[in-house]
Amino acid sequence: GAGRDIGGDGIGPDVVAQAVRVLTALDLGLDFAEAPVGGHAYRVAGHPLPPETLALAARADAILFGAVGDPDCDGLERQLRPEQAILGLRRELGLFANLRPARLFPGLADASALRPEVAGAIDLMIVRELTGDVYFGTPRGRRTTADGLREGFDTMRYDEAEIARIARLGFETARGRRGRLCSVDKANVLETSQLWRDVVTEIAAEYSDVALTHMYVDNAAMQLVRAPGQFDTIVTGNLFGDILSDQASMCVGSIGLLPSASLDAAGKGLYEPIHGSAPDIAGQDRANPLATILSAAMMLRHSLGLADAAARIEAAVAAVLASGARTADLGGTIGTAAMGDRVIAALA
Amino acid sequence: GAGRDIGGDGIGPDVVAQAVRVLTALDLGLDFAEAPVGGHAYRVAGHPLPPETLALAARADAILFGAVGDPDCDGLERQLRPEQAILGLRRELGLFANLRPARLFPGLADASALRPEVAGAIDLMIVRELTGDVYFGTPRGRRTTADGLREGFDTMRYDEAEIARIARLGFETARGRRGRLCSVDKANVLETSQLWRDVVTEIAAEYSDVALTHMYVDNAAMQLVRAPGQFDTIVTGNLFGDILSDQASMCVGSIGLLPSASLDAAGKGLYEPIHGSAPDIAGQDRANPLATILSAAMMLRHSLGLADAAARIEAAVAAVLASGARTADLGGTIGTAAMGDRVIAALA
Ligand SMILES: CC(C)[C@H](C(=O)O)[C@@H](O)C(=O)O
Ligand SMILES: CC(C)[C@H](C(=O)O)[C@@H](O)C(=O)O
Repeated sequence: GAGRDIGGDGIGPDVVAQAVRVLTALDLGLDFAEAPVGGHAYRVAGHPLPPETLALAARADAILFGAVGDPDCDGLERQLRPEQAILGLRRELGLFANLRPARLFPGLADASALRPEVAGAIDLMIVRELTGDVYFGTPRGRRTTADGLREGFDTMRYDEAEIARIARLGFETARGRRGRLCSVDKANVLETSQLWRDVVTEIAAEYSDVALTHMYVDNAAMQLVRAPGQFDTIVTGNLFGDILSDQASMCVGSIGLLPSASLDAAGKGLYEPIHGSAPDIAGQDRANPLATILSAAMMLRHSLGLADAAARIEAAVAAVLASGARTADLGGTIGTAAMGDRVIAALA
Repeated sequence: GAGRDIGGDGIGPDVVAQAVRVLTALDLGLDFAEAPVGGHAYRVAGHPLPPETLALAARADAILFGAVGDPDCDGLERQLRPEQAILGLRRELGLFANLRPARLFPGLADASALRPEVAGAIDLMIVRELTGDVYFGTPRGRRTTADGLREGFDTMRYDEAEIARIARLGFETARGRRGRLCSVDKANVLETSQLWRDVVTEIAAEYSDVALTHMYVDNAAMQLVRAPGQFDTIVTGNLFGDILSDQASMCVGSIGLLPSASLDAAGKGLYEPIHGSAPDIAGQDRANPLATILSAAMMLRHSLGLADAAARIEAAVAAVLASGARTADLGGTIGTAAMGDRVIAALA
């Protein structure tokens, strides 16, 4: 279906509608159900992640997610803001592993801010921990200092089980790729990072076929611009992963192209484009739906055991881009729905 | 002077020696004193920041710093590692404001990973808070969870006075440039960032001539690659500033070119290249001394009231680069000392 309840805020409904069309065109016998989320859910149900939405997500085999974020909600207390919906889904469903691939599509070298030879060398996977770190650590909040000043504080923390779990997924991922894992931290300053580095190093003993390196996050941000081709698989914490994956996405042209998977320990997942809700272009048929369509492909592969159908979608997207079709984010004029049409046509 | 005690670890002594030569050539009547710091200080004095070094730095009008960091010290407990020297100097001397300019030198467009038209548009200043945030917040450390697991934790925190102080410097800096200030935070997730955003917004009332915007750090990391020309002055916290400034440096060619100033409330400062100790090329006459030479120029301007001499150094560096002279980091073959020679020759 394609009611107003799917996809969350801003361009979320626009792009999810196209992904649902593509999935439907493949005739896979999928059962769709939809539920409000984000600022939209706050308006219709009083909470960004209503209990019914969470229950439906918990029952589903996989979740296709659009975007949340709405400037009209900026004045709300934190617990009611749209972002809490995605943070809540990640936490409540135990989606600890976020996979964010970045690779240049053929024919898109001119869309990157990087020199073509630099952008063309990018083929990396960021494995980001998603349910820990300073995102969820407690205590956190506001208080007044002894001097009567307002103070804001958060707790960065990881325990060894959380680190080991994501590290193993990082090593497994690297093993299925080019066999190199780079763990990113700030161990020269942070205690949390020092434990991270220690545990990743311990887990490495189980993966003697994978070459492990460590890099400080400031250096990683620099190397991702200087020579991104050096990276195969990157494993890192929630905050550093947030920053580095957005940065990497831009190196390959447009954030409008990049999908992601957020997985639990059993392989159930939530699938969403990396981009945000872009409220300025919502409902205008201007958003690029390809990141969400590619997220749907990841869903078929990782959660629904439909790798062939996933590959068909990915091949269709590559063909459409190779044909020169471009949405506005890539300097073109093709609309959201027309891009969906092209992908469906290319499936055949 | 140019004994082994200056410049800290790795290439620190190599590059500081050249900066001292340039300053000496200008005949400004400066008094130099030197002291061990970093891993070198740990070896000769048992601590990365010996009391005598801290006392000398406290007495000095300004501090020229090379680099600290030494893989041989990785096994030491945190308090004895080289990085503690620079963190200790920042904290003990109250150097709360780190200025990191990034601009492409004429003739260096080909050295950037970015397309020439993208790199050429960069002219920004990052104002990074340097004595707070998760770098220094307490409590921090290791403990064992109720389940018997190792846990690492750090405290991210800012109070309103710390934020207001760096925000004012951000606004002042923007006022002296193109009048635009972008404050970078992660207010959609972090309590610390929410206070940051609130206080920066309050301080904006004092600077109605400066246009203030806010940006999430993940988006900023992306925009710094996509369209860095959009930024004038960026103000941000210690951790995000660490990441973004390294990233920005690479957009303009080489981290070997970028100086920094770390200032206290009275304008006293520590001046250092942004790059690290690069132990793999230490003592081989291969490091680029220009970032340190440009840091010395910032020192003359910001702490010693010698703006004319600072401008002379900067013009000399620009002329040397325009002449095509390149150290190894920029694909050239000129050595560290020969680069110092060229700058001194160009001063004339
Ligand atoms: C919307 C926000 C809470 C989220 C995050 O910071 O994780 C987003 O930036 C992302 O990367 O999915
Ligand atoms: C060496 C390290 C502690 C330092 C930092 O993180 O501040 C460095 O990366 C810098 O940016 O000056």
